[in-house]
Amino acid sequence: MLEWTPDVGPVLRRSVRYGRGVGLHRRIVERQGEFLLFALTPPRRATPPEKRQEIAEATLKRLHTLDLDGLVLYDIDDESDRNPEERPFPFLPTMDPAEYLSRHLHEWNIPVVVYRTVGKYAEAQLRTWLGGQEPDRVLSVFVGTSSRDKPVTTSLTRAQALRSEVRPDLLLGGVAIPERHTRKGDEHLRLLAKQDAGCAFFITQVVYDINAAKNLVSDYHYECVARGQEPVPIVFTFSVCGSMKTLEFLTWLGVDVPRWIQNELRHADGTLEVSVEEALATALELIAYCRRLGVPFGLNVESVSVRRAEIESSVNLAARLGAELRR
Amino acid sequence: MLEWTPDVGPVLRRSVRYGRGVGLHRRIVERQGEFLLFALTPPRRATPPEKRQEIAEATLKRLHTLDLDGLVLYDIDDESDRNPEERPFPFLPTMDPAEYLSRHLHEWNIPVVVYRTVGKYAEAQLRTWLGGQEPDRVLSVFVGTSSRDKPVTTSLTRAQALRSEVRPDLLLGGVAIPERHTRKGDEHLRLLAKQDAGCAFFITQVVYDINAAKNLVSDYHYECVARGQEPVPIVFTFSVCGSMKTLEFLTWLGVDVPRWIQNELRHADGTLEVSVEEALATALELIAYCRRLGVPFGLNVESVSVRRAEIESSVNLAARLGAELRR
Repeated sequence: MLEWTPDVGPVLRRSVRYGRGVGLHRRIVERQGEFLLFALTPPRRATPPEKRQEIAEATLKRLHTLDLDGLVLYDIDDESDRNPEERPFPFLPTMDPAEYLSRHLHEWNIPVVVYRTVGKYAEAQLRTWLGGQEPDRVLSVFVGTSSRDKPVTTSLTRAQALRSEVRPDLLLGGVAIPERHTRKGDEHLRLLAKQDAGCAFFITQVVYDINAAKNLVSDYHYECVARGQEPVPIVFTFSVCGSMKTLEFLTWLGVDVPRWIQNELRHADGTLEVSVEEALATALELIAYCRRLGVPFGLNVESVSVRRAEIESSVNLAARLGAELRR
Repeated sequence: MLEWTPDVGPVLRRSVRYGRGVGLHRRIVERQGEFLLFALTPPRRATPPEKRQEIAEATLKRLHTLDLDGLVLYDIDDESDRNPEERPFPFLPTMDPAEYLSRHLHEWNIPVVVYRTVGKYAEAQLRTWLGGQEPDRVLSVFVGTSSRDKPVTTSLTRAQALRSEVRPDLLLGGVAIPERHTRKGDEHLRLLAKQDAGCAFFITQVVYDINAAKNLVSDYHYECVARGQEPVPIVFTFSVCGSMKTLEFLTWLGVDVPRWIQNELRHADGTLEVSVEEALATALELIAYCRRLGVPFGLNVESVSVRRAEIESSVNLAARLGAELRR
């Protein structure tokens, strides 16, 4: 979840493929799933405006070859309050994703899922933002606080209510954390509560622990069956990992990386290649599992590092995942 | 790990297939792995002798079609001291496996791995038993106490030393518990210490949690590499599960059954069939993983229930697993 490195190349305008992205809204509303997203972190706030534009264009150029259904823009919070361990990468404030989208990605033709760490914003700000969005181009995921002790300006509940009031046609998603299910066992109930509050899809944090993800999907599925409720799409997020530093960062973020995968990555000649294969294997198993249960799903690839090789591998992973979907 | 139901059928003598069982000793010593075992629990002590013979013959008849490399005979201990929860099935003392073998399975032509819960026996008893075995027909697995507070007659360390002294040519195995690795993270070091004490192979408790098993194999593999030591075969044990009662019993025994598998079993139309497929999928993944790492492995199928359908499914599972091995 760090910013992308700029890539000097020809300015890309109106040349971004339209892709199948037009279908994202429908695929969510009709609970079909089988869509592909790619997640970016906006540039650092310290980045000068012209450089931001360069980054945006380089990014779009990189994603050009992918048949994406949507882009995800993260809203990065410090989060160091939720983990007393030292952060492996320093926290550098990033641009507001909504601002990044409106200023630098307005030529992007496919839907964008804008994350909103709602506690950072005043109610009026959120209200204005919600009012200004076009629901066929923008979706949002509201994120609550990273720890109970953090003071918030707007609570998640209040933000959800605001959206229902101001912009009920804007598709809202929620975060799903398989690791929290491992520890507390009630993440499926949290998802259903978020559904009641308006969520039409969920996006997980990065998945390395296949059983944690399957446990959550399974409990969610059977709870939906018990309630006679339809499941909504769950989007599984994958990332590559090209170094021990990135692995450390994933762990710091709260991702459970099974010991054997950590060992594979640590001892591999090509850490990055191994991580791509692991992510692919995990995704394939989740795809088969969700199809079998009848739980709609999407896939999301996120790059957690700024290293060019890791970014390129993320794009490669997304291409391979896209080929597995029934679109 | 309960006794087998008797099956009235023609007395089977000298008709048991020789199978590939002759190779077990070599496959362990040469660290080739790729062998198939089937685990039985001796009849209850309360069973009259003629009935025991009937059970033995019915058992051999059932296993007749399998191309086994060896049979495993468990030495059942109460173990209620290691779990304060009520035991789902009552504990009924079973025959001593060594006695069962010598009295009722002497016609069995392939190697038998006799478990010895060493704490139950006096040193002299173990010494006599060890002295009387033919190492090309009998192997043993020594098991320590199930809890620290239990008084023991002979400690595991002492039993291992006895075997080195009395019968160094008798192949000795140890138990491997992936779940203990999940909790303590040092099971691979325990295995290596047991290897130093003479163990030439390991048999796991029933595996349902694939990541726990892979974590153990991975840590064991990389520790062997670091020490410049050759890994010995790890035998993965699988069982079928045909009812919620059996599932409860597995959990009571300390087997971690992932939540999603529990759900599948609970909601399945055919619990038994689902459990066979799950065990097969887990085994296939472990086979591929061990081959990739170069860790020799074996497979073991154990029936934890006395129900005929579950026993038949166990035999079926063993047949399907056997077909996957490179023998």
